Amino acid sequence: MVCLSTMARNTDMRWRLPLVCLLWEVAMIVLFGIFVRFNPEADVAGWEEEKQQKNISDIQNEFYFRYPSFQDVHVMIFVGFGFLMTFLQRYGFGAVGFNFLLAAFGIQWALLMQGWLHTFEHGKILIGVESLINADFCVGSVCIAFGAILGKVSPVQLLIMTLFQVTLFSVNEYILLDLLHVKDAGGSMTIHTFGAYFGLTVTAILYRPNLEQTKDKQESVYHSDLFAMIGTLFLWMYWPSFNSAISNHGDAQHRAAINTYCSLAACVLTSVAFSSLLQKKGRLSMVHIQNATLAGGVAVGTSAEMMLTPYGALIVGFICGIVTTIGYVYFTPFLDAKLHIQDTCGIHNLHGMPGLIGGIVGAVTAAAATEGVYGKKGLINMFGFTGEYQDRTPSIQGGFQAAGIAVSLAMAFVGGAIVGGILKLPFFGDPTDENCFEDNVYWEVPGDEESNLYCMHDSNAKPGINP
Amino acid sequence: MVCLSTMARNTDMRWRLPLVCLLWEVAMIVLFGIFVRFNPEADVAGWEEEKQQKNISDIQNEFYFRYPSFQDVHVMIFVGFGFLMTFLQRYGFGAVGFNFLLAAFGIQWALLMQGWLHTFEHGKILIGVESLINADFCVGSVCIAFGAILGKVSPVQLLIMTLFQVTLFSVNEYILLDLLHVKDAGGSMTIHTFGAYFGLTVTAILYRPNLEQTKDKQESVYHSDLFAMIGTLFLWMYWPSFNSAISNHGDAQHRAAINTYCSLAACVLTSVAFSSLLQKKGRLSMVHIQNATLAGGVAVGTSAEMMLTPYGALIVGFICGIVTTIGYVYFTPFLDAKLHIQDTCGIHNLHGMPGLIGGIVGAVTAAAATEGVYGKKGLINMFGFTGEYQDRTPSIQGGFQAAGIAVSLAMAFVGGAIVGGILKLPFFGDPTDENCFEDNVYWEVPGDEESNLYCMHDSNAKPGINP
Amino acid sequence: MVCLSTMARNTDMRWRLPLVCLLWEVAMIVLFGIFVRFNPEADVAGWEEEKQQKNISDIQNEFYFRYPSFQDVHVMIFVGFGFLMTFLQRYGFGAVGFNFLLAAFGIQWALLMQGWLHTFEHGKILIGVESLINADFCVGSVCIAFGAILGKVSPVQLLIMTLFQVTLFSVNEYILLDLLHVKDAGGSMTIHTFGAYFGLTVTAILYRPNLEQTKDKQESVYHSDLFAMIGTLFLWMYWPSFNSAISNHGDAQHRAAINTYCSLAACVLTSVAFSSLLQKKGRLSMVHIQNATLAGGVAVGTSAEMMLTPYGALIVGFICGIVTTIGYVYFTPFLDAKLHIQDTCGIHNLHGMPGLIGGIVGAVTAAAATEGVYGKKGLINMFGFTGEYQDRTPSIQGGFQAAGIAVSLAMAFVGGAIVGGILKLPFFGDPTDENCFEDNVYWEVPGDEESNLYCMHDSNAKPGINP
Repeated sequence: MVCLSTMARNTDMRWRLPLVCLLWEVAMIVLFGIFVRFNPEADVAGWEEEKQQKNISDIQNEFYFRYPSFQDVHVMIFVGFGFLMTFLQRYGFGAVGFNFLLAAFGIQWALLMQGWLHTFEHGKILIGVESLINADFCVGSVCIAFGAILGKVSPVQLLIMTLFQVTLFSVNEYILLDLLHVKDAGGSMTIHTFGAYFGLTVTAILYRPNLEQTKDKQESVYHSDLFAMIGTLFLWMYWPSFNSAISNHGDAQHRAAINTYCSLAACVLTSVAFSSLLQKKGRLSMVHIQNATLAGGVAVGTSAEMMLTPYGALIVGFICGIVTTIGYVYFTPFLDAKLHIQDTCGIHNLHGMPGLIGGIVGAVTAAAATEGVYGKKGLINMFGFTGEYQDRTPSIQGGFQAAGIAVSLAMAFVGGAIVGGILKLPFFGDPTDENCFEDNVYWEVPGDEESNLYCMHDSNAKPGINP
Repeated sequence: MVCLSTMARNTDMRWRLPLVCLLWEVAMIVLFGIFVRFNPEADVAGWEEEKQQKNISDIQNEFYFRYPSFQDVHVMIFVGFGFLMTFLQRYGFGAVGFNFLLAAFGIQWALLMQGWLHTFEHGKILIGVESLINADFCVGSVCIAFGAILGKVSPVQLLIMTLFQVTLFSVNEYILLDLLHVKDAGGSMTIHTFGAYFGLTVTAILYRPNLEQTKDKQESVYHSDLFAMIGTLFLWMYWPSFNSAISNHGDAQHRAAINTYCSLAACVLTSVAFSSLLQKKGRLSMVHIQNATLAGGVAVGTSAEMMLTPYGALIVGFICGIVTTIGYVYFTPFLDAKLHIQDTCGIHNLHGMPGLIGGIVGAVTAAAATEGVYGKKGLINMFGFTGEYQDRTPSIQGGFQAAGIAVSLAMAFVGGAIVGGILKLPFFGDPTDENCFEDNVYWEVPGDEESNLYCMHDSNAKPGINP
Repeated sequence: MVCLSTMARNTDMRWRLPLVCLLWEVAMIVLFGIFVRFNPEADVAGWEEEKQQKNISDIQNEFYFRYPSFQDVHVMIFVGFGFLMTFLQRYGFGAVGFNFLLAAFGIQWALLMQGWLHTFEHGKILIGVESLINADFCVGSVCIAFGAILGKVSPVQLLIMTLFQVTLFSVNEYILLDLLHVKDAGGSMTIHTFGAYFGLTVTAILYRPNLEQTKDKQESVYHSDLFAMIGTLFLWMYWPSFNSAISNHGDAQHRAAINTYCSLAACVLTSVAFSSLLQKKGRLSMVHIQNATLAGGVAVGTSAEMMLTPYGALIVGFICGIVTTIGYVYFTPFLDAKLHIQDTCGIHNLHGMPGLIGGIVGAVTAAAATEGVYGKKGLINMFGFTGEYQDRTPSIQGGFQAAGIAVSLAMAFVGGAIVGGILKLPFFGDPTDENCFEDNVYWEVPGDEESNLYCMHDSNAKPGINP
């Protein structure tokens, strides 16, 4: 009886979760009603007018340039991130289900936030397929941060984090893209660096000193590792679409896909090499294969659409496979033991460091741009050296790119600290230490008997042995 | 010996299944040989001629407008529906395998049926990528009906149902689209309403009073729920492609994708809210997350391509997440106990009610259309107010849309009753009540010993305890 | 101690695997640095110039014609082949992980090899999205060969095989496409026939007489069969993209997709029919459903882009479903027992025989081409009867197509024999017979205790019973 009431007090979501979901969704409806409309390419009358004015045909609707990439990105957010986190033996429902929940809320709030900051005209936010991609991107940074706190928070905490992180993401993105006029099509800075260091700051603040006792549950079982590979592969395969999804039409999208393909291929080889090198008996670790193989995609996020060249992409992938694998073996335990950063999925290795590398590679690639390589007109188009930016040179652009990294980090640390503090408030229903990484706190789990359910976590007794 | 011979009499597919498959496939070949040819866009000489006549280039081939959407729809039918139904602990092979079988047959028969009714010219059916999408759509309604009878029928029964249901679907679709001149691009009426109520009628007629005893097998296990989430997510992610796949080029496809994206996002929030609200201790149920989150896609099937607006889509999704979740908690047990409708997957909740809502939303949206919103030309294009329909007004169109719902329901009930009666014939090899929801009746299941296999179901003994 | 040291000597990858991965990846970087550049459609200045010269717009960039198909092919290689091979109960990590590794290396080497032979201009290889597709295709043939030796080789052996097989594939492809001027857009000859008979020759040379003792591990378990169905379905669904990915723009791509769709649908019906017919009690075998349903895609690889017609495609699919299923039941045991060819995944059934059939169907379809069907211009475009080939007639083309089959077979047998001989060298760390089909030789497997791990295979004792 005692254990039942203790648990009920802690983690019963019955009123809190429905309240948050319903109130927030009503708020979305009201705000969409006031602000959100179709942009001319998705509007009956608007498209008719645009076709006549620009003398173009239906195939030149933005939809056909972007929709296939959008769908690939969509798969990455929901199946990619969702299944990547199913590696825990008893947290598959939470991984894929909470990821689904936060992303579904996040994309709505992102459409509003990014809309107000980017496509707000005459009091209305005009959305099209590119808005959907940007909303998915924004939510991607929340999925990344989720990886750090996976298994240790309640769904209400996740929704609160999503609300704040989407807001901060949009502000940071606005500073980078609009104020600093930085290029970051694949989001090395805005998505990965910001998302990772935000999540790491949050998890540091939510530090749980007694998490050792759930060590078993922090590991995988055979089939959970295969489920995680579904996530890995869909992320890996569709990453070229991610980095090219919002690049300029034509050559830029084309080039971004090729560069990302090359970087990811190289990354697999060095991940395998260092996984084997650093493990006992040279046996490969699924953790490395599931994660480090993706670092190459993160690290060309800024530069993929630039003239990085295929061999440049290979070099970036080569380095990041090594850095990330070493990260899993040495940095993650160090962060946990010394800095009290409990990073469930190792997002520092996969998104933090490769994101920083990606920002730097982007700055260098931009600074190294020449008219000889891009052509005069190409250079202007690529970096948007028009209007108030017409006097920018590549090397100045490189400096602004570097500034973008610093701003993203600052926003992540400050924002993460504030949000972490909010999440520490005692009424959001987070699990006790013994209940972490365990689905049956928030989910009806098939086969779990009620009688075993409540006490097995408090007493750490095995089901059935409970007297 | 007795139990072996009993079972062999009942469910041995050795001659019946091959006979049906081979005879029907030969019939397909003969009918395709007589009737089916490429349309001009897929024909060497035809496309050459069309390019010259219309002064267009290769990129304006229908293939580039529709193929990415087609592939997404294809994934929904085979992986989406197939894996969504793998939630049962011992019916994963049947779920994904029989879905594969019926869909593969159904698309061939649908190409013929829809071809005769829609693209029959000079004695030939001319097919292109849009025909493939329509065939997949048609089969979608069979996959829905399969959900109601999952685990309770033989593959021969499924093939027979597919033959009849595709036929009836095509006739119903012809009445709606060609005779009533109704719009239903995402199939709220033709696919979901028809498919669901057809399937429910069939399962009512195949009522099995003693199904209680297989209660265990009607539940999931931990990993089967994760497999089902693969189905859920691919359905959820690709639903914008489903609802936009056959819309008009340009703005209509663009808009249909955006509306569906919005509706689905809202739906997730309310599904989670009501799942938590209606469960003991506020714990979420995977059944709701797997299914109710998709209702938003069903319910904007008719209206997504219209000027529903993003907030309208959010409202529809909001309502349907609630309706569907409540359906699983209250209606499904009620239908089973009171109306003797055993709905294995709860298709009434996911496709029946949301399909009806979708039809109504479509009728209202059409009736509310104005020249102010669509423009004069836009209104004509959207609803096809040309030729014999040039005098139709939006409000009349709304009335016809409503009539489409009634026709679909009537076809479903009458057709389902007839087909259910046919399936009741005693020689199609359906499983006994104790063998329902059990793969090893129709599949070689790894690890099952022959000796255990035959009697464990008759005696309900556990394998190995069989004396 | 003895067993531990024995095993360490055999299969410890600690130095060999990292060395191969790192050295080869460095070689890739150097070669890419010297040779690989973007083609004009992916180059800033190049695309600007091309748009002006040809008076085209961004939507006519090759990217928009090919990228969606590329992504589908990419999924087939990594998820399709990877998961198809997870059916073994204890080799899921190896199946999906080693497939990932070899494909990631293979695509880089293929970009170089195919580049030197096909798009080498002024000392540079110019790559674009079509190069990525071709690299994936090339690697597809390695994935096929991997299926024959699955579970019996070390990752170092796989990388070595990949290096040689990609090289030989590219030479064979060059002979077929450039010297013989043969059409093979979906690769019935270059990918499937070559890949299958190459792999079969390799496995024949690596014959292990005592493999009987691992019989248990060569079987599936319930959930591993469901994982394999993920692979099957993604291969099946995206095969129309595979066969149309590099066809000519417009009608050829369109037609190739339709033909493949039809062939695959028919194939499912006959696979099911013969699976039921040939099994005890008429129960279906997952092996057949997982594999034979795909044979229709293999067998229209050459002819799908030609005017095969939908009913022609149905006939090809009909035959191949039967041939492949019979192959699994009768040929695979025969090859093993009589010819000492141990074909883990049955690639002879799925790729060997259907590949040959595909080559023959292609030759016949080409030989039967007429101006009446294709039009004068269409016939020239379809088969490239221009320049030095302007005097070719369809019947001569049919002869060259047939020659292409013979060349592919010859290359496969000779190449496979040489590479098999190389792989037999004793220092590549292949597993002992008892360790075959077992992940914990090369992978950290969760839940495996060190103490059990080493000796369980030598003594065949069960974990925990080890005295």
